[in-house]
Amino acid sequence: MAQKPSIPKGTRDFSPLETARRNYIFDTIRDVFRLYGFRPIETPAMENLSTLMGKYGDEGDKLLFKILNSGDFLAKADHELIATGETARVASQICEKGLRYDLTVPFARYVVQHRAELQFPFKRFQIQPVWRADRPQKGRYREFYQCDADIVGSDSLANEIELLQLIDEVFTRFGIRIAIKLNNRKVLAGIAETLGAADKIIDITVAIDKLDKIGIEQVNAELIERGLTPEAVERLQPILSISGSIDERLDTIESLLADSPTGLLGVKELREVTAATLALGLNAELDLDFSLARGLNYYTGTIIEVKALDVAIGSITGGGRYDNLTGVFGMPGISGVGISFGADRIYDVLTALELFPEESARPTTIMFANLGTPEAAMAMKVIKQMRQAGISAEIYPDNTKMKKQMGWADDHKIPYVAIIGETELSQNKLTLKNMSTGEQTLVSPEEAIDILKK
Amino acid sequence: MAQKPSIPKGTRDFSPLETARRNYIFDTIRDVFRLYGFRPIETPAMENLSTLMGKYGDEGDKLLFKILNSGDFLAKADHELIATGETARVASQICEKGLRYDLTVPFARYVVQHRAELQFPFKRFQIQPVWRADRPQKGRYREFYQCDADIVGSDSLANEIELLQLIDEVFTRFGIRIAIKLNNRKVLAGIAETLGAADKIIDITVAIDKLDKIGIEQVNAELIERGLTPEAVERLQPILSISGSIDERLDTIESLLADSPTGLLGVKELREVTAATLALGLNAELDLDFSLARGLNYYTGTIIEVKALDVAIGSITGGGRYDNLTGVFGMPGISGVGISFGADRIYDVLTALELFPEESARPTTIMFANLGTPEAAMAMKVIKQMRQAGISAEIYPDNTKMKKQMGWADDHKIPYVAIIGETELSQNKLTLKNMSTGEQTLVSPEEAIDILKK
Repeated sequence: MAQKPSIPKGTRDFSPLETARRNYIFDTIRDVFRLYGFRPIETPAMENLSTLMGKYGDEGDKLLFKILNSGDFLAKADHELIATGETARVASQICEKGLRYDLTVPFARYVVQHRAELQFPFKRFQIQPVWRADRPQKGRYREFYQCDADIVGSDSLANEIELLQLIDEVFTRFGIRIAIKLNNRKVLAGIAETLGAADKIIDITVAIDKLDKIGIEQVNAELIERGLTPEAVERLQPILSISGSIDERLDTIESLLADSPTGLLGVKELREVTAATLALGLNAELDLDFSLARGLNYYTGTIIEVKALDVAIGSITGGGRYDNLTGVFGMPGISGVGISFGADRIYDVLTALELFPEESARPTTIMFANLGTPEAAMAMKVIKQMRQAGISAEIYPDNTKMKKQMGWADDHKIPYVAIIGETELSQNKLTLKNMSTGEQTLVSPEEAIDILKK
Repeated sequence: MAQKPSIPKGTRDFSPLETARRNYIFDTIRDVFRLYGFRPIETPAMENLSTLMGKYGDEGDKLLFKILNSGDFLAKADHELIATGETARVASQICEKGLRYDLTVPFARYVVQHRAELQFPFKRFQIQPVWRADRPQKGRYREFYQCDADIVGSDSLANEIELLQLIDEVFTRFGIRIAIKLNNRKVLAGIAETLGAADKIIDITVAIDKLDKIGIEQVNAELIERGLTPEAVERLQPILSISGSIDERLDTIESLLADSPTGLLGVKELREVTAATLALGLNAELDLDFSLARGLNYYTGTIIEVKALDVAIGSITGGGRYDNLTGVFGMPGISGVGISFGADRIYDVLTALELFPEESARPTTIMFANLGTPEAAMAMKVIKQMRQAGISAEIYPDNTKMKKQMGWADDHKIPYVAIIGETELSQNKLTLKNMSTGEQTLVSPEEAIDILKK
């Protein structure tokens, strides 16, 4: 056991400062969720593998953390499959449970399982960790938090308008300047139809989703590779180069998609959502991006993506509307719209821009030095008074060298130290030291409380 | 997929009301932890099995949830062991990681791993779920939260005194009347010595720990069974029947343990901790219980257990001092003391005594009915103003029947509903309905905000 212990790769310990800052992020998002009428639920970390498997594609199935059955797990295993190394099939014989991969599938499962108790529209938020057996790399972890809010059982665009305001409020509170990019899956479908390639909607969106990253030339090349005719690619060019104000771009795309009823419906929805959101006013930049796709197989209407304006980092929040969240669990026809905040990237943005409020670290306001038994007894009495006044206070537990005690207060960035020695004890007073100015004053416990409450 | 989905046995979904109430518990405990100068850390759900195995006894090892290695997990497995059904050894070949079983071992691992960054004494709190493959039964779950606070790197009894006050503060905030029972492992050692059975300390404490449950006769029988002589059992009787005030009991046990230096040290520690705690004053009943053992192999000094006075339920909080938290990870000599709040049992007590504050459910303050596009647009403007004033508000997303909308507000226990129809729209006013009295008033948005802020 002499070897220094470690944690699994891709996982993290969070120090007091990191934890406090992460809590600041979660608390801020949670407060705004509540302000907007979302209600919290929590689901177990472990789900039945039958709930999770097949929901994230073949790749996703491989990224699920599976939990070994308790007891004699080998009893149910087919030894022939073991011998031939059929890992996937053996895994499903010796594991019944897995760690959740996201919050969406557990939410869908929750809605179906508890449908009788729920009143629709159901507005829930959920802030919990998820696990993925991804190859760890910078900024990608095997355990990370998702912060999701969804409204299900309503197809009103009022929900989209609410969510856009909610996003704006969250990032306003963080002090992060953002652009919110919008698209609509129906516009993407309309584009594919207009190009005469309705069956190639996935190829088209996968390719044009990379526009920002690889540029128009390479997107075009990829489209040809994916089987689009040169004529179709030609017809796509005006769509990809649409510019102007939101209204101008909506007018242009509307005329370009004039022959696609689906496309026109998408434009109408975008028009309604952007007009209402702008009328209410927001701090964020609102932007259209007809190449935005995000989880295409899933979204059916509005698509939302948020980028930080002052830090080059990927999407920090995203979401959209889906029409069949719960169909896979036997409850079809439930439309919903949701967003997910990426806590880790928000953490990185707040760090890069030095936007964490100082209070988020919340050190104790005052440490009482420990100068011996009777002095410590009085210190504890004063500490009790201070805590009753809402001031966080603590005593250095050991009667050790003063230098060590002051160093501890310093290391913990505690702004005040109280010293109660023989003299102070006899006068029922304390010496209050301001750790940033070094100033020391002899005050009564009540005076100290008044000073600290300021 | 027609079958209704479910969750693994022993795990739970938490509804909005349950989640809000659980958050009330966590937030209250967290606030008090902070008030006392504890700082939060978080550790990953998954630990290396090498960190977890062997720390909880043979039974504990079996209760660990093990995570199947990703990829070709069979490659490392010994097929002979599989053939002979050696589940434990096969498990260790195909699983490198497990879910944490408690917060103590991960904390010990954290302290050793991060020793260079930490300033001792280190005061941390941690509120996270743990997982145990226990047989599920009423009140026992396979996933549950622990709320732990520990001070490590200090053997001062000031820490015990602080923790007792902290416990008192937490339960005072909850409104739960409690008794805090104290013992000291050194007293237990002294009892064993005095009985002439120092080597039987574990047998003795395991037996007398059951005193409350099975009564003195059965405890005595068990002690004989465990190899104690009838004379030793005879000598134990006055110890088990000690009565009187705390001081009287300390005096009696002191005289009974007069020949055991270890026992006397334990009595001295108990005397110091109880005297200082009582001098500071507390709402809880403070009590001594010389039969209290709790995790005997682990604690070395003070032992703490909390029971609710008004509900018959087991221990709702417990803790104690340990001398060698981190020794198993190669860092000996770190003394510490900690406590753990049992969130699930506290939940049950708060429910039984109907002590959850109404606000803990935090419904939205006001729902705006949806009577059509222009009306909804005005509603959203007013909602924005209200949220800016800190009032949680939402719009019913769909323009459906009024009865349905009002029913939804009712189901969600939302105290106010705002109605903006044609008339209100033309006057820039809203009809504010108090859902408990049924009273309706026509007011301006500003007047509504004033009413709701009260």
